[in-house]
Amino acid sequence: MTVAPPLSGAELARALFAPRSVALIGASSDPVKASSRPLRYLRRDGFAGAVYPVNRRGGVIGGEPVHRTLAELPEVPEHAFLMTPTAATVAAVRECGEAGVRLATVLSGGFGENGPTGRERERALRETAAAYGVRLLGPNSLGVVNPRRRLALTANAAFSEPDLPVGGTMVASQSGSLLGALMSRSRGRGTGFSRMVSVGAEADLSLGEICAATVADDDVTGYLLFLESLRHADRLRAFAIAAAAEGKPVVAYKLGRSRVGAELALSHTGALAGEDDVATAFLADCGIARISTLDGLLEALPLLDAVPARRAGERPRRVGVVTTTGGGAAMVVDQIGVRGVPLATVSAATHARLTAAGVAAEPGPIVDLTLAGTRPEIMGAALDVLRTAPEIDLLVAVIGSSARSQPELATTPLVDRAGRPGCPLAVFVVPEAPDASAMLAATGLPVSRTPESCADVVAAALGRTAPTPRTVPTAAVPGPARLLDEAASYARIAALGVPVAPFRVVPVGAVAPEDLAFPVAVKALSAALPHKSDVGGVVLGVGSPADVRTASRRVAADVAAGAGVQIHEVLVQEMRPALGEVLVGYRVDPEAGPMVLVAAGGVLAELLRDRAVRMAPVDRETALEMLDEVVSLGVLRGFRGAPRGDLGALADVVVALSRLAEDAGVVTAELNPVLVGATGVTAVDAVVHCVDDSSNDRQEDR
Amino acid sequence: MTVAPPLSGAELARALFAPRSVALIGASSDPVKASSRPLRYLRRDGFAGAVYPVNRRGGVIGGEPVHRTLAELPEVPEHAFLMTPTAATVAAVRECGEAGVRLATVLSGGFGENGPTGRERERALRETAAAYGVRLLGPNSLGVVNPRRRLALTANAAFSEPDLPVGGTMVASQSGSLLGALMSRSRGRGTGFSRMVSVGAEADLSLGEICAATVADDDVTGYLLFLESLRHADRLRAFAIAAAAEGKPVVAYKLGRSRVGAELALSHTGALAGEDDVATAFLADCGIARISTLDGLLEALPLLDAVPARRAGERPRRVGVVTTTGGGAAMVVDQIGVRGVPLATVSAATHARLTAAGVAAEPGPIVDLTLAGTRPEIMGAALDVLRTAPEIDLLVAVIGSSARSQPELATTPLVDRAGRPGCPLAVFVVPEAPDASAMLAATGLPVSRTPESCADVVAAALGRTAPTPRTVPTAAVPGPARLLDEAASYARIAALGVPVAPFRVVPVGAVAPEDLAFPVAVKALSAALPHKSDVGGVVLGVGSPADVRTASRRVAADVAAGAGVQIHEVLVQEMRPALGEVLVGYRVDPEAGPMVLVAAGGVLAELLRDRAVRMAPVDRETALEMLDEVVSLGVLRGFRGAPRGDLGALADVVVALSRLAEDAGVVTAELNPVLVGATGVTAVDAVVHCVDDSSNDRQEDR
Repeated sequence: MTVAPPLSGAELARALFAPRSVALIGASSDPVKASSRPLRYLRRDGFAGAVYPVNRRGGVIGGEPVHRTLAELPEVPEHAFLMTPTAATVAAVRECGEAGVRLATVLSGGFGENGPTGRERERALRETAAAYGVRLLGPNSLGVVNPRRRLALTANAAFSEPDLPVGGTMVASQSGSLLGALMSRSRGRGTGFSRMVSVGAEADLSLGEICAATVADDDVTGYLLFLESLRHADRLRAFAIAAAAEGKPVVAYKLGRSRVGAELALSHTGALAGEDDVATAFLADCGIARISTLDGLLEALPLLDAVPARRAGERPRRVGVVTTTGGGAAMVVDQIGVRGVPLATVSAATHARLTAAGVAAEPGPIVDLTLAGTRPEIMGAALDVLRTAPEIDLLVAVIGSSARSQPELATTPLVDRAGRPGCPLAVFVVPEAPDASAMLAATGLPVSRTPESCADVVAAALGRTAPTPRTVPTAAVPGPARLLDEAASYARIAALGVPVAPFRVVPVGAVAPEDLAFPVAVKALSAALPHKSDVGGVVLGVGSPADVRTASRRVAADVAAGAGVQIHEVLVQEMRPALGEVLVGYRVDPEAGPMVLVAAGGVLAELLRDRAVRMAPVDRETALEMLDEVVSLGVLRGFRGAPRGDLGALADVVVALSRLAEDAGVVTAELNPVLVGATGVTAVDAVVHCVDDSSNDRQEDR
Repeated sequence: MTVAPPLSGAELARALFAPRSVALIGASSDPVKASSRPLRYLRRDGFAGAVYPVNRRGGVIGGEPVHRTLAELPEVPEHAFLMTPTAATVAAVRECGEAGVRLATVLSGGFGENGPTGRERERALRETAAAYGVRLLGPNSLGVVNPRRRLALTANAAFSEPDLPVGGTMVASQSGSLLGALMSRSRGRGTGFSRMVSVGAEADLSLGEICAATVADDDVTGYLLFLESLRHADRLRAFAIAAAAEGKPVVAYKLGRSRVGAELALSHTGALAGEDDVATAFLADCGIARISTLDGLLEALPLLDAVPARRAGERPRRVGVVTTTGGGAAMVVDQIGVRGVPLATVSAATHARLTAAGVAAEPGPIVDLTLAGTRPEIMGAALDVLRTAPEIDLLVAVIGSSARSQPELATTPLVDRAGRPGCPLAVFVVPEAPDASAMLAATGLPVSRTPESCADVVAAALGRTAPTPRTVPTAAVPGPARLLDEAASYARIAALGVPVAPFRVVPVGAVAPEDLAFPVAVKALSAALPHKSDVGGVVLGVGSPADVRTASRRVAADVAAGAGVQIHEVLVQEMRPALGEVLVGYRVDPEAGPMVLVAAGGVLAELLRDRAVRMAPVDRETALEMLDEVVSLGVLRGFRGAPRGDLGALADVVVALSRLAEDAGVVTAELNPVLVGATGVTAVDAVVHCVDDSSNDRQEDR
């Protein structure tokens, strides 16, 4: 047995999307069967490469002789498409390996998502492929499509339609059935794709690796991802960084906005379902624009292409709106407002420029040209003025009925300006106007067909940042963790520069030192008590050194009774008044990697899930943005005359804790609460979990 | 001058949508002008009634002689369409009145929305019309359309397209320009409308009155409303009740989801912009389904037609999902989850029935038939089983690529079942599949083109209740209000059955009675202090009758210094521990009418706008639903082991306070806080504003 040398990225891209020869293993002559489709599609479209149907039963399909084995073929095919039954797939991959095939796509399901048997089968599949140096797409992949190469190497019935529309976008989807829907919807808009891939279960080739292999391809101008769950996050990030370097934007629709959706992704794919804001933070950190509407997914890339990435701490960018129809524009403005994106108000100077250009407009957030706007010279003049107005960072043009009745006339001023200097332009077409929409799309303008998708796309484009290069530490796959006691936890976080309220460790039954400022809190000190206050492990408001002795005995008795834990020491900590309490947390998400979290303290904030999450580490600008996102923290910003808290110092704590990402030894850390004062902040509790080095052997076993 | 007798509802409906004769006043011969359009449209379509172009300049348009005055016409036209300039409109209405015309549509703008001059002009318009008994549509109305009558009596350029699509839905819009977009989008779905009306500024005829006039028309099967703001709420409610009585559902899209959208509606129409949840509560109370997506607006009515109205307190209805495409179904399920609608899990019994019917399906919230589902007998069998499964109240069928590749085959099982018994059915078509969508729509099935609109429509249909008949009290237009002091406020609310913590009114400087349970709160008593705690008017935790004396003097001094108010008495009230604090409020919204509100107490709940609003009065089931909606109240439901509060008693308080709607004398009432205990609740502050009868004269002046 010879192991083929690993495919380079360029070789992989070619084998996937532009193979010179393809073997269709398990090809069927029964036209009703899915396994009959690839040959039919390839012949219909006139694919220029060699195509070899292979089936151990031999025979003839559509006049073509069927080969019984790979070994019979006159050459080693560059891409083998396996349509064998699940149980025969491992053997088929072995046959590929023995024949020297370096890339195989596996159509069958019934692997990792199918219980212990399926997982075992997937392991065998992966190991067999690795042993022969065969790269795998799938299992459970519906295949690949490259319209420019006339390659519809797929069993998807949706491709029974000829003349695949061609465009610049590459589609990569964890759901194979979505490919057809995306293609038909793109076709309906007069656009198309350059590549499509159904990545299946990603047992070997991941979505990120596949996309990364294509970033240098000139006919791929951007990426559209359909994600059920986050898998192989490191590969996804590496791809996103490479795509950004090539100036190719990436948009993603990810399931899991709701709990039921997240659970569905879990049951459907066998992957871990993450919390939705973790996925949002991960994608944002990778510079991938996350979209919430199906229409928006198809509309976003041209706008992403035009809008530069945002820097953390940059002033919010503002949207201007010009229209021929007040009602249509109002719908978009309302939806933009719902997404928290600020609208620009036309300045007096801009208003004067509009007037000088012959454009009459009332003041307000919408420049409503009314009927006059259907005259191309009026709309054109308004676009020229507004796209160069300093108060407008992105202009939405909302086009009314003229887009349907006079598509040429309505689109001319927009099409003419597609390449001109000025801020990015997005278009919402209010009527059903396929001709106008296709004309606009053909010039690369972003065109939306609903107010919701338009606002979705605008918000995503304005919110996108450049990808952050990160190395996910080894703790990204956390094994067993070991709790540190509160004093040890403080030691770990104080080293990062987090201010901690002064404390002493005192034996149970001892008098506390005089040099603490009273009152103090007396807390059970133990690495066996992660939730000490639930079991009577905390006494607050202890007034004197002598009272600490009593309190420590009570605490010891209570945790012995409540949790069966014997303690020998308590942590005695100064109490101080605060304007508010905040939770700052750090953890290593098993898929996404290290995250930092801020939430207002208390049960209410938890109930309302009022929190902000980012990949760690964060810089200070990002930390301040996080504080802005936590609505409850408005209280510390002087809401209703409340005294202001030191949010700058709080941001410093967030930055400091997030630097745990550089410390592979820590799995989670939670400061709850951090007390926020008028000047300064202090942590008054800390729970840190470290990697349990002593269990390395056990980890190996798993 | 003779005043015509008022038009009956039936006469109004005929004059608007099926006039036997139409006068086009200000008709132009210049085809570029909007005022040339109505004549062109009516002649193009072959409108069967008489059409009289009228223009004081006379002449000929398209071979037809133009009349110079209304008096010249051979008959009194049933409907006059006024295209005169703004300044000439009042005179034109007068001419109508003198000629005996009973209905005039006014195209011009420049009235109420245009500052003091415009408002004065609108007053003159309204008074002139009323003086002659002329009913007005508009001003600022783009007109009316009735495709069955070939009546496109509109200046909207969108109707330059012939062959208006016909359907059962009547469209009524506060935005005229939206009519064209709705028509073209409906046409694109293979559906159409029975009536369209641009209601303009509603200076005389309101949207509600116009729609009410058509509820008996057989060719109107449901209503689609586009609302910029709530206006003439009483008429809207009366219409909604009449429509429900005829079994005709009503769906509305209303601007104002965001603050900026609400302000826009304000500036655009001159109406008062309400808070969005007030509008939501009003529409829900009227049994009008509010929709959040433009696609959903066009998709909702068939489903509303099939789903019976919900009763308050009914168990939440559950949605089942059957599909041929897992990815497409997952998108819908995720969006349904985002909207808080519960998914049904297929029971063991249903699973057994599916198996017996030859349908293979995995457990989970989605019945995924995969490729087998493209066979009509499999999909049909699954539909029959699932539509009669007791755990499923509404079934969503998600149809994949076969809807495009084989529309007949894919739609047959659905079309065949359109009239069969079983739970309501909604369809999401994942690919772009206009043929299949039109086939489904033609049989009256609800068809959605995006997962977001599908979930929007499903949530709206399941959430809709029957309209509540209410008489809005005279206080609905609140004049000046008078604050009651705390003791008088308690008297008003205690009469409704709201429990109030025991209190005494004590002169400043006096000792409090012994029979109060101490500690107590000492509060300044004055009808001049709505926010007494902001000015030092409250001292808490006063421990003894004698301490009350000191406290009352401090309070008196503080409010004298802080607010310049001299008080003579304090209110001394028992303090008691509570598990939580809640705000219960009542107010008469100027547009929507009496509302009751529940919010968790404290600044945090305010910041997070965590509240529930309903039209008042409410029944107990509704009050309990409100408490369910306030997320923060989860703390009182035992979240994280917190002790449970007496939410039943709190619901009783909500019901009691909401009965203020029967008391025209009260404008607002706020209980803040109501203390919630483990058993029972008590109000410990109350602020009631009454109608100021003494100012009746002033009100007359306004």
